Amino acid sequence: MAPGRTEAPPGTGRDGHGANKTLAIRPKDHDIVLKTLRLLVADLCQQFGGGHPGGAIGMAAIGVALWRYAMKYAPHSPDYFNRDRFVLSNGHTCIFQYMFLHLSGYKAMTFDQLKSYHSERVDALCPGHPEIEHEGIEVTTGPLGQGVANAVGLAIATKNLAATYNRPNFPVVSNHVWCMIGDACLQEGVALEAISLAGHLRLDNLTIIYDNNQITCDGSVDLTNSEDVNAKMRACGWRVVDVEDGCYDVEGLVKALEDSRRPQDGKPTFINVRTVIGLGSAVAGTADAHGQAFGKEDVANMKRANGFDPDQYFVVGEAVRDFFSDLPRRGEALAAEWGSLVDQYATEHPDLALEFRRRVRGNLPANWRDHIPGMFSDKPTPTRASSGLVLNPIAKELNSFIVGTADLSPSVHMAWDGKEDFQNPDVRPACGINGSYTGRYIHYGVREHAMCAISNGIAAYNPGTFVPVTSSFFMFYLYGAPAVRMGALQRLQVIHAATHDSIGMGEDGPTHQPVELATLFRATPNLLYMRPADSEEAAGAWEVAIRERSRPSIVSTSRHKLPQLAPRTRRDGVEKGAYVVQEVDDDGVHADLTLLGVGAELTLALDVAAELAAKHGVRARVVSFPCWRLFDEQPVGYRRETLRRHGDAGIPALVIEPYAPQGWERYADAGVCLRRFGHSLPGPAAYKYFGYETEPLSEKVLGYLNGLKSGEYLRGEFVDL
Amino acid sequence: MAPGRTEAPPGTGRDGHGANKTLAIRPKDHDIVLKTLRLLVADLCQQFGGGHPGGAIGMAAIGVALWRYAMKYAPHSPDYFNRDRFVLSNGHTCIFQYMFLHLSGYKAMTFDQLKSYHSERVDALCPGHPEIEHEGIEVTTGPLGQGVANAVGLAIATKNLAATYNRPNFPVVSNHVWCMIGDACLQEGVALEAISLAGHLRLDNLTIIYDNNQITCDGSVDLTNSEDVNAKMRACGWRVVDVEDGCYDVEGLVKALEDSRRPQDGKPTFINVRTVIGLGSAVAGTADAHGQAFGKEDVANMKRANGFDPDQYFVVGEAVRDFFSDLPRRGEALAAEWGSLVDQYATEHPDLALEFRRRVRGNLPANWRDHIPGMFSDKPTPTRASSGLVLNPIAKELNSFIVGTADLSPSVHMAWDGKEDFQNPDVRPACGINGSYTGRYIHYGVREHAMCAISNGIAAYNPGTFVPVTSSFFMFYLYGAPAVRMGALQRLQVIHAATHDSIGMGEDGPTHQPVELATLFRATPNLLYMRPADSEEAAGAWEVAIRERSRPSIVSTSRHKLPQLAPRTRRDGVEKGAYVVQEVDDDGVHADLTLLGVGAELTLALDVAAELAAKHGVRARVVSFPCWRLFDEQPVGYRRETLRRHGDAGIPALVIEPYAPQGWERYADAGVCLRRFGHSLPGPAAYKYFGYETEPLSEKVLGYLNGLKSGEYLRGEFVDL
Repeated sequence: MAPGRTEAPPGTGRDGHGANKTLAIRPKDHDIVLKTLRLLVADLCQQFGGGHPGGAIGMAAIGVALWRYAMKYAPHSPDYFNRDRFVLSNGHTCIFQYMFLHLSGYKAMTFDQLKSYHSERVDALCPGHPEIEHEGIEVTTGPLGQGVANAVGLAIATKNLAATYNRPNFPVVSNHVWCMIGDACLQEGVALEAISLAGHLRLDNLTIIYDNNQITCDGSVDLTNSEDVNAKMRACGWRVVDVEDGCYDVEGLVKALEDSRRPQDGKPTFINVRTVIGLGSAVAGTADAHGQAFGKEDVANMKRANGFDPDQYFVVGEAVRDFFSDLPRRGEALAAEWGSLVDQYATEHPDLALEFRRRVRGNLPANWRDHIPGMFSDKPTPTRASSGLVLNPIAKELNSFIVGTADLSPSVHMAWDGKEDFQNPDVRPACGINGSYTGRYIHYGVREHAMCAISNGIAAYNPGTFVPVTSSFFMFYLYGAPAVRMGALQRLQVIHAATHDSIGMGEDGPTHQPVELATLFRATPNLLYMRPADSEEAAGAWEVAIRERSRPSIVSTSRHKLPQLAPRTRRDGVEKGAYVVQEVDDDGVHADLTLLGVGAELTLALDVAAELAAKHGVRARVVSFPCWRLFDEQPVGYRRETLRRHGDAGIPALVIEPYAPQGWERYADAGVCLRRFGHSLPGPAAYKYFGYETEPLSEKVLGYLNGLKSGEYLRGEFVDL
Repeated sequence: MAPGRTEAPPGTGRDGHGANKTLAIRPKDHDIVLKTLRLLVADLCQQFGGGHPGGAIGMAAIGVALWRYAMKYAPHSPDYFNRDRFVLSNGHTCIFQYMFLHLSGYKAMTFDQLKSYHSERVDALCPGHPEIEHEGIEVTTGPLGQGVANAVGLAIATKNLAATYNRPNFPVVSNHVWCMIGDACLQEGVALEAISLAGHLRLDNLTIIYDNNQITCDGSVDLTNSEDVNAKMRACGWRVVDVEDGCYDVEGLVKALEDSRRPQDGKPTFINVRTVIGLGSAVAGTADAHGQAFGKEDVANMKRANGFDPDQYFVVGEAVRDFFSDLPRRGEALAAEWGSLVDQYATEHPDLALEFRRRVRGNLPANWRDHIPGMFSDKPTPTRASSGLVLNPIAKELNSFIVGTADLSPSVHMAWDGKEDFQNPDVRPACGINGSYTGRYIHYGVREHAMCAISNGIAAYNPGTFVPVTSSFFMFYLYGAPAVRMGALQRLQVIHAATHDSIGMGEDGPTHQPVELATLFRATPNLLYMRPADSEEAAGAWEVAIRERSRPSIVSTSRHKLPQLAPRTRRDGVEKGAYVVQEVDDDGVHADLTLLGVGAELTLALDVAAELAAKHGVRARVVSFPCWRLFDEQPVGYRRETLRRHGDAGIPALVIEPYAPQGWERYADAGVCLRRFGHSLPGPAAYKYFGYETEPLSEKVLGYLNGLKSGEYLRGEFVDL
């Protein structure tokens, strides 16, 4: 049996999920449960006069089918490893999820907490969109479409783990991934990219549930969308199932959901559920039900129509509590059964289990650093290749690493010798490259945004189990930026190998030459943007990126060859963000200024310093400055000592980087930066065109020093040279 | 006849295009022409050992069908208004376009210029991707997928102009839009969004030509994509046509192209053309043909195989020159015929023609400013509503404005009373809202990226003919950022109405609260990011945005109500980027510091200044700082006088803005900024949570001043408070 096929079908008792623990359908309870849920949503939004009631109300029956029946999870062991993963891509309907977390027994989500929705309570567990920090939430969603891609990532993670660790009779990883979406998610490009890839990869462990209420903020969906969504999904390789009465037909929903859990045709499933937004309210079926409370009178009328007392609020009767009451017990049984399964597995497959358990704990092997080369040849090397020299051996040896590219394999150096592609094993590409679900190299296609969002999903599967690596040209990370941001917000360890940074990337021209993009990533909280200057610094940057288990990193590298500057460059300098690579007179006391060199242009700073010393008697210190954020985290003493800008012996600092200057003012007094877009020229010619050569740079430095003397420039007033 | 239906079919002699000028098919020439073109591409890439030969070679027959036959354009009058628009979305194949520009007679594209491809010539017209600045190029493309959306924008522009100005027998606007794409464009989300919208809008004046060579950088497309692309396009509302032999079947291509120009079923056309990348080279049909020269030997072999002399380069025989030689004449005839048509139109429809000609010249009515309210009520107003107060009357009266939203009509205040939607007149949305192609309000759907890229296309139709306005929450402009960048790079006037800026947007939480995003847009060359503080500054911001005919702007506004600060705020202050709203002692000489207030938080800065004066005897000037770039463009004297940071009487400046601080260091010595993500709380509670209230802010200011005195803080070293 191929490793990719060891997921036993449910109901065999050996699916790792205790299928026998499925609760029996209780159709007679559904009416009161649905009424209660809908009125509860109406009350929760009405209390503070805000929130998004409509979708949550329309999706009530879907929620019952998921939380009461189809989903395998453990409310009292929320991190139970083999739990199904649920993603609410239409995150604005979060009260839907919070309500089911409460009713199904998640301990943190008390009734009081549930009622904190839209309150001023600062420790509320009910933020306006689901947040990963809180119990029972798998990923933070909100910006539409992201969740779909996250779910694809979770399904990839599951497939890869299952293929790697499952053995006959030991389906230790067999969870399903459920993704709830609204009409909007089907319009967002990132979702469309991810849907296309999921169909290609035949992720049959993934189900999208489409809350098809045909309403968005502006009105009915056919204002903006006339497509045949089912036909489109089928064209993308998805199995499509319709549920006509999504407001009431819990049994139909349960059947559709449970069917989709069983692998069929090797396709992911798209369940198109017709619902009515804000069902039962006066604004049902309209955009007015979407993003505002219904008003007191309407909520009271809803209660009357459903036989509830309009003067009672947040009513959840015993019958309803009882309906959900078995879920914690079922969950504990699931978790316990999985625990025993893994114990038996450890007996039968001890080595595999050792590794599996390490990955469940989220650890890398203690010796991971040993795979990083201790030194590099003196040969000039593009830092994109340096990244490959550092990461390839690690990615090859450590199967926590799952590395992908947005169709730039030949350029980004992330494919290691003998890498296996992550593919459905039945897919036989015409070009002959082949793979399976054990493969850890993902061809994402030209889908940068989905690549980054999918990688967030992989990382979110379980903390530390995977270290996803993405790769593309640096400029194209602007396409992926919304997902890079979400990774930073969630503190997910995803490493982005961004190549072809700065104008040195050359001929492709200003459309491909990043100028302003680094400013965004340097300003993004929790994100490390690092520009290594050579192989030694590349080793340092990757070491930081791998060590940082709760922050994403961008390792930003050059297309063109750079000289090896070690031992002046040091890998342990990178973790400090900036460090002195060349002093004047050992102690720098008699220096005239400090040059800040960065990444591909550090070598230029050193050349300029040499030129200034040799021809002009100007003594320049040189600081390598790979990462703002790491430098900001150093003690003030280290920072002042490194820059030496202030105090009595303060000297000016001048940065050389062909990027927008914004933000350098914190570290420098002047900059040779770019305040315009680039130009299509071969790399060296582009540097020349913009004056990034030793002589014109030296002239600018001299001009700056003279300007300071003459009073044209004021100390403390940043000068663009 | 409805305005939307006055485009006479081609061949009637009154299509504004002189259909009788179509050149006869010369099939016997096609063989030598195609051979010549392919070898020319091979030589052009080989000379400097770089470039993208494969796609250009594979698309040679498509180019012949377009430039020699199907496209209506005028090489010697490249800006002829009614020309067909061609967009090369797979911009890396630019040598394809350059070659046809040269052969069809564009004057700027001399043979010498053509040979500058990948050279070090700084004035080359052959950059690595097509650039709008150069003759015959409609839009700058390169980042994949953008071009598709641009083409949709060009088609929208055409439809709107045709519906507005065409009259029976006077089809003064009847151009077609052609968009060339590769496999990659079909994977990018921005293209998928735009394709979906184009199908909905039934843009039958748009043809996508798909260079289906099944190869991307990583290898064959089926590594990453298995979808049934034709079925997907049909599901999106497109007419699909296959051309099986796209390498040689020029006649089949011409037929497919010309058919697609004739309105059929009200659908845009997708022509799926099977080609072979790098046809005839040793690497034909493989990824190796994509992004590198073939090597001397291979090129020589190609020449031999085609009966050419391997030692001769850039050979374009007389027969080939002759084949294209009639195109300038045909183009001049087209342009002249259109000129006469417009002259007759001016006689029959003088008022309409007057307006049409003004828009052809790209002008707004001289009195456009008169539509901006001269003053506003004192009522506290969210600046998003202020934006509406300013723009709605202009958008209503001036039909150059075409305004859209990514499904946030109820929130962004961009819909004016009586606005008509831009829709195919046959589309009858369920919600009852209706429109036609004369409509100028576009429901883009939840497709922020496409919205921005489509707007670039609308703006690129002809300079100044349209002023496209987009709208969404500010945070979602990160989705659209790649297109905002392309607009800035191309200096296209697109105005982005970005609402819900800063943490004041509230409950939606950190996923929706922009923190770092402004840093990106402030650093983007050519782009104006403006945060008005109240209605008066909103008027100033829109005035700047509308006046700036060759730069895009973002007008960034609050969700929540803000007090009206005029006359302290001044609309003419905005154009200076920053200006003093409150002096100390009239002249500021005795001030202790300057507070920089921005947008929604300017009112806080004023409150803090009052608190400091009243309770602590600290004298604070207040500067309103809506736009960095505009301030940077002021004379140094104005800048120093406004900030007063330097020189003998220099005082520190302190900025209050809940955004990332990066870049403020240029203007301030300290900042109460955000170095973390936001928090889901109601707006006022979010401000409170992060300390943006008068008292804690005043405490921070005092702490800073004390820290300066004690030496804890050094002047010139930026302090995060």
